[in-house]
Amino acid sequence: MRTKRFSTYKGDRTSARKSAGGKVYIYGKHALMEALENAPRVIRKVFLAPDLLDGALRALLEKNNISTATLAPGKGKELVGRDTAHQGVIAVMNPASLLVSFDEFLATLDIKTNPAVAVLGEVQDPHNVGAIIRSAAAFGLSAVLIPEHNQAGITGAVVKTSAGMAFRIPLVSIGNVNVALKALKDKGFWIYGLAMGGKTVLGTDAFDAPAAFVVGNEGAGIREKTLATCDVTLSIPMHPRTESLNAAVSAAVVFYEWSKKHPEHLV
Amino acid sequence: MRTKRFSTYKGDRTSARKSAGGKVYIYGKHALMEALENAPRVIRKVFLAPDLLDGALRALLEKNNISTATLAPGKGKELVGRDTAHQGVIAVMNPASLLVSFDEFLATLDIKTNPAVAVLGEVQDPHNVGAIIRSAAAFGLSAVLIPEHNQAGITGAVVKTSAGMAFRIPLVSIGNVNVALKALKDKGFWIYGLAMGGKTVLGTDAFDAPAAFVVGNEGAGIREKTLATCDVTLSIPMHPRTESLNAAVSAAVVFYEWSKKHPEHLV
Repeated sequence: MRTKRFSTYKGDRTSARKSAGGKVYIYGKHALMEALENAPRVIRKVFLAPDLLDGALRALLEKNNISTATLAPGKGKELVGRDTAHQGVIAVMNPASLLVSFDEFLATLDIKTNPAVAVLGEVQDPHNVGAIIRSAAAFGLSAVLIPEHNQAGITGAVVKTSAGMAFRIPLVSIGNVNVALKALKDKGFWIYGLAMGGKTVLGTDAFDAPAAFVVGNEGAGIREKTLATCDVTLSIPMHPRTESLNAAVSAAVVFYEWSKKHPEHLV
Repeated sequence: MRTKRFSTYKGDRTSARKSAGGKVYIYGKHALMEALENAPRVIRKVFLAPDLLDGALRALLEKNNISTATLAPGKGKELVGRDTAHQGVIAVMNPASLLVSFDEFLATLDIKTNPAVAVLGEVQDPHNVGAIIRSAAAFGLSAVLIPEHNQAGITGAVVKTSAGMAFRIPLVSIGNVNVALKALKDKGFWIYGLAMGGKTVLGTDAFDAPAAFVVGNEGAGIREKTLATCDVTLSIPMHPRTESLNAAVSAAVVFYEWSKKHPEHLV
């Protein structure tokens, strides 16, 4: 788990931030409500400003048996920085508890529905990870598979950038990308690598089997060994003045194209 | 022009940052080379570390008659902050000089090629603005139209997030969104508003006329008056668990769908 501090980049008022010690804070009422409604197990403790009047929030905390403490003056600044609009609400969360195991996920997966999953292959920027989770949820994918190593983990910045979707789509922990891809192949998945210069132009594939979309590192792309495991490499046609697309944008465009062929996954 | 400081969010080593006083700094060799090759007019002065050995960079600066100064110890920290890897290269740029006027743009536009443009309607997050510029360039759009007010301007963060594309696609300054849209209509453009609940599902429109895609504010969407000016409102089908897509992701998906119908604009 990384301990680097990531700043938030959205203009809204709710957010999450990873502390230097490895704890992740969710701040703002909306973000906390979203977490409490969808995955209360991730919340360990909540600091509330003494003058905070929010009956719904306090009731939800009580219902879920979550311990609270008073947010003393200066404590907010200490926890999430002085520029963060926390609205008197700061929760300590354990983002690792959002992850489910690969075996557990495979056991619940109905392969006959031709599902799709996203597989992160060394995506480094937590904002890209969060954006990919958000788009995967929007376009009807069944899960986002996240390797344990060489990959940005589920941090506060990821949760925030996902716009709450980190709580609404299964996030599956995989030990190793290639091992997981082989297991998916055995289940009948086709493995698609999103790659610059990929051989198959997006839009020409029928996506008529279960699909796993591998998104590689922002700079280096997909590792060679992983690329060799892919059944298909997908490219998105673009203007030659451009060197590349943003990783999260590429992923979204691919998920969108898949969803067009699978409207049944958008309900 | 806003003077708020925006932090960078990508993991790479080149970047740009707006100072509190309104100046914008480009830092890192790659970012500066990109600027020098495509829009040298925006660079006003470059600070170089005395031990920097980069003949190509120094030659390009000389060729473009750009004044340089020695980056004294501590100066880098003062200009772009202590956590920024500037590689001994910090340039002062004037991002406003990237903008071209609407009249100038209209005069050079060949309407018979059925071009497309992006129109920003109160997009607040500079990272979204930069990402939209990057995707617009990638998917063959002819320009990004940027209103003067209620809209994130061209800052260092925008330039950085655009991955250099701010230097490669025309950025057009418009006084007012609605006035510009009417002028585009007069030229034969169809105005598409990207809107939650838009009446036309993306993928069903033939995009067989010049197209202007209006991207609204991240939270509030497109203003009502602007929406009334749109000929078509476009929606992207998504799963009901999701409230919305990221503004830059929506834009990219729409630009992608347009580019599929206009491969001639990808060369």
